[in-house]
Amino acid sequence: MSVTAAQGFSAAGIAAGIKDSGDPDLALVVNNGPRLAAAGVFTSNRVKAAPVVWSEQVLKGGRVSAVVLNSGGANACTGPLGFQDTHATAEKTAEVLGGDHSAGEVAVASTGLIGIRLPMDKLLPGVGAAAAKLSAHGGEKAAIAIKTTDSVHKTAVVERASAAGSWTVGGMAKGAGMLAPGLATMLVVLTTDADVARPELDRALRAATRTTFDRIDSDGCMSTNDTVLLLASGASGAAPAYEEFAEAVRAVCDDLARQLIGDAEGASKDIRIEVVNAASEDDAVEVGRSIARNNLLKCALHGEDPNWGRVLSAIGTTSAAFEPDRLNVAINGVWVCKGGSVGEDRELVDMRYREVRITADLAAGPESAVIWTNDLTADYVHENSAYSS
Amino acid sequence: MSVTAAQGFSAAGIAAGIKDSGDPDLALVVNNGPRLAAAGVFTSNRVKAAPVVWSEQVLKGGRVSAVVLNSGGANACTGPLGFQDTHATAEKTAEVLGGDHSAGEVAVASTGLIGIRLPMDKLLPGVGAAAAKLSAHGGEKAAIAIKTTDSVHKTAVVERASAAGSWTVGGMAKGAGMLAPGLATMLVVLTTDADVARPELDRALRAATRTTFDRIDSDGCMSTNDTVLLLASGASGAAPAYEEFAEAVRAVCDDLARQLIGDAEGASKDIRIEVVNAASEDDAVEVGRSIARNNLLKCALHGEDPNWGRVLSAIGTTSAAFEPDRLNVAINGVWVCKGGSVGEDRELVDMRYREVRITADLAAGPESAVIWTNDLTADYVHENSAYSS
Repeated sequence: MSVTAAQGFSAAGIAAGIKDSGDPDLALVVNNGPRLAAAGVFTSNRVKAAPVVWSEQVLKGGRVSAVVLNSGGANACTGPLGFQDTHATAEKTAEVLGGDHSAGEVAVASTGLIGIRLPMDKLLPGVGAAAAKLSAHGGEKAAIAIKTTDSVHKTAVVERASAAGSWTVGGMAKGAGMLAPGLATMLVVLTTDADVARPELDRALRAATRTTFDRIDSDGCMSTNDTVLLLASGASGAAPAYEEFAEAVRAVCDDLARQLIGDAEGASKDIRIEVVNAASEDDAVEVGRSIARNNLLKCALHGEDPNWGRVLSAIGTTSAAFEPDRLNVAINGVWVCKGGSVGEDRELVDMRYREVRITADLAAGPESAVIWTNDLTADYVHENSAYSS
Repeated sequence: MSVTAAQGFSAAGIAAGIKDSGDPDLALVVNNGPRLAAAGVFTSNRVKAAPVVWSEQVLKGGRVSAVVLNSGGANACTGPLGFQDTHATAEKTAEVLGGDHSAGEVAVASTGLIGIRLPMDKLLPGVGAAAAKLSAHGGEKAAIAIKTTDSVHKTAVVERASAAGSWTVGGMAKGAGMLAPGLATMLVVLTTDADVARPELDRALRAATRTTFDRIDSDGCMSTNDTVLLLASGASGAAPAYEEFAEAVRAVCDDLARQLIGDAEGASKDIRIEVVNAASEDDAVEVGRSIARNNLLKCALHGEDPNWGRVLSAIGTTSAAFEPDRLNVAINGVWVCKGGSVGEDRELVDMRYREVRITADLAAGPESAVIWTNDLTADYVHENSAYSS
């Protein structure tokens, strides 16, 4: 269902020949209106790919009529010529879609190897071929065409019936990472047929990404290309209350974020880190991220070793408010560290399952946050060393 | 030669039974004077092991008559009872050494698993056994007794003859990491027979560690136990000029730091990252560290893939002064990235050797810094997941 679950959208996914493998590599999503409201959130990496620079500019206008996405090349670190390629892609899209479409309302997203120009001789004809296949049932194919190292394509949909009528938020995602940072590039396109104005759309998207995509941290590496877009067609005629709409956007983002962690390169564990009793939410996030990025802990969890000492080491590198001798840590519900020292018997911790739950109690206040990460495995090393990606 | 290369020191290394393997696990270094001047630098982790808390206090007095070190247990996150264990170890050392020795001048260092109490029934008798073996030729055995996952023991010596007479700086190290952060705990004891007062000793040690141990970053993880001590006996009678002495200390630290990187757990590449043309030294260090901690790059280098895009991604996450389109990156002397985009042919990069040299040119000023790291390998994952460490 993906990006075409909501009314007013059509999509397509095709193989344009950008990937040597012949796999699908070009997706097109079109908002048929009546509204063209849009919001976007992008990587905070200062080295931004050409399509990110382009799409940030497009989003400033608040209107997006189409999104064209390619896998098989990130178009990052490609200089002025790379930016011209992105511009030409948007121009070509507007041209083949015709009607009121203009390049300034076409967002572009790319994913793949950095530092390689895109094969425009394949990409531009591919845009025309994708336009010819646009369909109100094309969401699934679009989701497949944006895959890189993803083992499965990722989609999510929520439908809501409220006093305002029925409306839908759906979307697709690729990658295994996060907004800042991300393992691989994360590209997400969300669509809704709710009638929501640009300011509320923007507010709902930023609120949702802040606690979902921005809190998955598979390997601490921030991409040059991360992009999350939310397009509203207004085609349902329903105009839900802001809180109701924001909750639905958050639910779809949360679903997709979990799928990204669950499909991270080479991972054998999905690790949920909840930091509780922090003095501030910022403290909780800083501590959660520090734990999530500790390679020694990630190796230990891969080996099913509930090594709470490495959790404490990671907490100790932060500037969060805490007293070392008041820290408590639970792994899968067993409080293996109490008061900064040995707690319950670590032999009680059952590490057999894919999901590992770490609770870090800072004993310093009322705030909390959840960060998701993965373990560090030989497969991760293999996937990221055996070939360029 | 190690810690007994300089006159006025004796040392011993024995198997006290702390390690189940029966390998050597207890080292003792004694300063026989006439001076007892000492300086120390410790982990900046806020979760500090008991021996770090103890030794920081001892060093405030500026005098150290002996250092007792154990492998086989870090005595970290062991609460008030763990601190009592460290205190008892210092008391026992002063007692068996007799004479003018007092516990308040005995530094203690430990390394091994976090969150486990030390077997004091083995450690305390071991202190007596080590004292009985003290010798002016015991430096090598002491260096062996502090090994944990080290494949080799690590020592370095420089001898200097100056107008002031002949004098020596020597030392031993264990671990594969850095002061802040470190892969495994890093313990270093340096000794000198130069006649140097405490303030100059402290200044020389801080200057040396800042550009050596503090710039090796094997896996971004900071230990609870990192300790670097410098003891001066004055036994040579030579009082070198400060600059001359500081250079010798830096040379020994640099030598030991390179040995630590060369023996990092599971590594197949030693990676030298030089950041040049930075606006400030802090910028250069921040960028170097960000590159050193990028798991994706570390995997790529393991696979002998000169993936400069991952270098740019890492630079982009920093707050250093630079313009993305002015960045240049060389790998093993080939400028694969120029002006933020594709440079010389990456096929020209010879990646066959253990040492990999990355140069990141920020084109933003006159400052530079060198950071050393290792690649990320399946062996690293194995060593850190197959058993608790």
